[in-house]
Amino acid sequence: MNSLLNNPTFFAYALTCLLLCANLIFLWAFSGATRGKTKTAINPEDAAQFGGALVDADPPEVARVLRAHTNAQANIYPFLFLGLVFVLAGGSAAVAKIIFGIFVVARFAHTYVYLAGKQPWRSIFFIIGGLATIALMLDIAWLLIQS
Amino acid sequence: MNSLLNNPTFFAYALTCLLLCANLIFLWAFSGATRGKTKTAINPEDAAQFGGALVDADPPEVARVLRAHTNAQANIYPFLFLGLVFVLAGGSAAVAKIIFGIFVVARFAHTYVYLAGKQPWRSIFFIIGGLATIALMLDIAWLLIQS
Amino acid sequence: MNSLLNNPTFFAYALTCLLLCANLIFLWAFSGATRGKTKTAINPEDAAQFGGALVDADPPEVARVLRAHTNAQANIYPFLFLGLVFVLAGGSAAVAKIIFGIFVVARFAHTYVYLAGKQPWRSIFFIIGGLATIALMLDIAWLLIQS
Repeated sequence: MNSLLNNPTFFAYALTCLLLCANLIFLWAFSGATRGKTKTAINPEDAAQFGGALVDADPPEVARVLRAHTNAQANIYPFLFLGLVFVLAGGSAAVAKIIFGIFVVARFAHTYVYLAGKQPWRSIFFIIGGLATIALMLDIAWLLIQS
Repeated sequence: MNSLLNNPTFFAYALTCLLLCANLIFLWAFSGATRGKTKTAINPEDAAQFGGALVDADPPEVARVLRAHTNAQANIYPFLFLGLVFVLAGGSAAVAKIIFGIFVVARFAHTYVYLAGKQPWRSIFFIIGGLATIALMLDIAWLLIQS
Repeated sequence: MNSLLNNPTFFAYALTCLLLCANLIFLWAFSGATRGKTKTAINPEDAAQFGGALVDADPPEVARVLRAHTNAQANIYPFLFLGLVFVLAGGSAAVAKIIFGIFVVARFAHTYVYLAGKQPWRSIFFIIGGLATIALMLDIAWLLIQS
């Protein structure tokens, strides 16, 4: 197979996928780093190996990072599946650049304001990401109807 | 790249992806709406901005929606990856329509009966979705062996 | 569309996807089986239908399987998106075989040692999987820059 990198819609998707996966991986790694700083462990073998107090539930600062990660997963995975369908369905590169760009900025901003505990910004960026997802779904529906 | 929409296996996948992502996004949005109706907040900044009682754990009706969402994620994401591999491996459109169709109906029904708290229906629809996933995995394994 | 199975990078991806989805589905099914063995239920309708004690939180042995599943999801889904982008971007089959192979072995080993409660092995296999993911991201970034 030839590379799809000459296809500007795919190029936009590949860059989007890279950025959004970096966002997810950062949040997951950061939850572990934050747990380490609180010197707590959820697994007995972690407390035995690395020290720290064995706890039943993560401390609030770790739970916050995990909620941000859960929110990121719930929003980013559907978007990445839909984005790839849009690429393979021959979707417009101009539309992809706008929708993918808005989504990436909204999710990076959502991550920042979730960790910083800032409202109403968290809700605002969540809604912007949601609207970008709905726009992508409508675009795909339109491509399916037209075909 | 040309659109794959002329490929009936891809068309079935695109429609399946749209419906399953709508299912996931509905459950996520519904968990937030249900939390709002209970007038509770998990994040201090939410209680401060929008009112509501700050709680350590979601009330039972919110926890139920989140369990339905967790179950949907655990089942739908693997299916969407496998479905796309099946499309790109040149899988049969007739097989795709049957397996994808059964899975979509089973997952929509699972969501409904989970929210309604109906057993043994929830287990039945979970198992039907699981069997569809296993059938898809066997089909992919067969394509890999034959190639 | 023709099958991509003649493309060795895609073949490696298809096999990887099959194995990693089997890993995820095993962990999800195993969490349910483990809950059954503890004779506990989280949903009132499950206790009413199948018997068992209604509990607010899963017993420790079920919670462990679910943590292994959560860890698997957080790591495997981004890898599967990135892997597919690598295939479609025309990535090298030799590189794919090495990175995909290391990741699959590391995640299977991670699942085993998480369920067995063995440290420092769990951290070691987590880190190996993480390094494989970072290597894949750098390869994709390199393909994007070169194109």
